[in-house]
Amino acid sequence: MSTFNNVTVTKAANIYYDGKVTSRVVSFADGSTKTLGIMLPGDYEFGTEKAELMEILAGDLTVKLPGSDAWQTIKGGDSFDVPANSKFQLKVSAVVDYCCSYLD
Amino acid sequence: MSTFNNVTVTKAANIYYDGKVTSRVVSFADGSTKTLGIMLPGDYEFGTEKAELMEILAGDLTVKLPGSDAWQTIKGGDSFDVPANSKFQLKVSAVVDYCCSYLD
Repeated sequence: MSTFNNVTVTKAANIYYDGKVTSRVVSFADGSTKTLGIMLPGDYEFGTEKAELMEILAGDLTVKLPGSDAWQTIKGGDSFDVPANSKFQLKVSAVVDYCCSYLD
Repeated sequence: MSTFNNVTVTKAANIYYDGKVTSRVVSFADGSTKTLGIMLPGDYEFGTEKAELMEILAGDLTVKLPGSDAWQTIKGGDSFDVPANSKFQLKVSAVVDYCCSYLD
């Protein structure tokens, strides 16, 4: 799916890490939300509240998921799940375009 | 207006200048389009096809508009117009969150 239709977009961006990570919130009629975001090359740590499905639309990164000591290689077209109320670490090596879905 | 309602969002970002400038297309029911974007600190030049209204939601920059030799200071809350089929230059000093409207 290349577009999201009949959605609400919050105009102001979320800005993290001096703008190296940014995202915007997209809200759907069923009450669910996603963010569409960009991560520039760098090392990041994020925390979740809800569980997340991270779809990597483009770019290259490695991710260390909660409870793992291994860094997993992720490329454009790949996705990964992050549990609720957890932390995960990312090393981005090529600009990442992503879609994050918040799961109930 | 803090949200755009009943719109279509193109999932994939537009990525320029190694990711230092990124945007996503928002399409409205009346056929008009805007982009919501981020510019990290740096010097940029862009060309227009349609005329543009650039609303700066947050950040600091100076802009040199077509036909002017002066650099104009722009802050969050300010906006400026760019003519169709022209080039303009920007120097971004603090991360810019913007909304660009394409005018007929």
